[in-house]
Amino acid sequence: MARVSQAHLDARRRQILDGATRCFTRNGFHATSMQDVLKEADLSAGAVYRYFRSKEELIVAIAEETFLLIRGAFEAAAERNPPPGPDLLIAEVLETILEVRAGEPGADPRDFPRLMLQVWTETLRNEDLAALLRRGYEEISGAWMGLVETYREAGMLPVGVPSEHIARTLIAAAQGYITQQALFGGIDPGMLRDGLRGLMSMGPAPDRRHGA
Amino acid sequence: MARVSQAHLDARRRQILDGATRCFTRNGFHATSMQDVLKEADLSAGAVYRYFRSKEELIVAIAEETFLLIRGAFEAAAERNPPPGPDLLIAEVLETILEVRAGEPGADPRDFPRLMLQVWTETLRNEDLAALLRRGYEEISGAWMGLVETYREAGMLPVGVPSEHIARTLIAAAQGYITQQALFGGIDPGMLRDGLRGLMSMGPAPDRRHGA
Repeated sequence: MARVSQAHLDARRRQILDGATRCFTRNGFHATSMQDVLKEADLSAGAVYRYFRSKEELIVAIAEETFLLIRGAFEAAAERNPPPGPDLLIAEVLETILEVRAGEPGADPRDFPRLMLQVWTETLRNEDLAALLRRGYEEISGAWMGLVETYREAGMLPVGVPSEHIARTLIAAAQGYITQQALFGGIDPGMLRDGLRGLMSMGPAPDRRHGA
Repeated sequence: MARVSQAHLDARRRQILDGATRCFTRNGFHATSMQDVLKEADLSAGAVYRYFRSKEELIVAIAEETFLLIRGAFEAAAERNPPPGPDLLIAEVLETILEVRAGEPGADPRDFPRLMLQVWTETLRNEDLAALLRRGYEEISGAWMGLVETYREAGMLPVGVPSEHIARTLIAAAQGYITQQALFGGIDPGMLRDGLRGLMSMGPAPDRRHGA
């Protein structure tokens, strides 16, 4: 039997994942069959099933790659000293992840957000995906919490709210941006940067708002 | 032919929508058939098809009701004078919409968020739903923009960011909260209230963060 190099195996895996991503983005997860993926990747069933036994395994692998991408973009943006504020950081991370597929032929800026929405919905009935998302979410949440502590130590965060709540709120803003971009398109990450900047300028003004 | 009262027609329509909502929440939109809906609503095909000809029409009707609910909760919370800050308002609106189905037998706090995620994903390939969501989103966005103007007039919003960007960012935070609650559960809307309050206390600190 001929020996196959690791580089060849990796390239083949990449080819399958890219084909599956295009299918899921174009037609949705449920309307895509393994046959569609074979055709899109231009490979035989034997070649594909060696790597992935089902659509579910493909979407888990795509979700794993996505978390690596988000985590990497976040860490690259956060390692500066002093770290950028949350408004700038969130826009940088979103720009980085939206640009990843932008260079491919026929790419649409809504492709990645649409894929994310499908991953989320599929997570509601796929235990493996749910475990993966839970882990990935906790990692990103932990990274934001570390950064929030840095803001706090620098005196930038006067109110005593738990770091976890701020981290989850910032992730929620990014998830909501992805949802809006998937549904409606045409929204620049700068919208979220400016919106957060506006909110950050408001101040909690507790007396006025908690009062009767 | 016997005359049928409007109250009877409305009750029948309610019965169908509630049955469909339970099916979609439990099994997802794609794994639910019209047969499942008939069975869940305990009605004949003739009775159901008189109101809704397809699953697509059912999900459009459910999305329409959801927008009315969100809009109503928002207006009820915003009509106070002075209006509550965005942190308090967003938590109130989320609490209201999450409680709507909480009284039904077997209800789970993740039901409504899970249904929303499915509506979003279905919107990616359903033109009627896309038009409906676009309209509903613009209404809610317009309502937030009015409120942001009120904050600005009251001197609560010092930074000159467009109201639309702040409105979209607040909606994004709510959408992201719904996503996290659908995926992971156990998250109180107070998390978002506190997280926004923390961000509002940060200040834009432009010199420190825009600098090299």
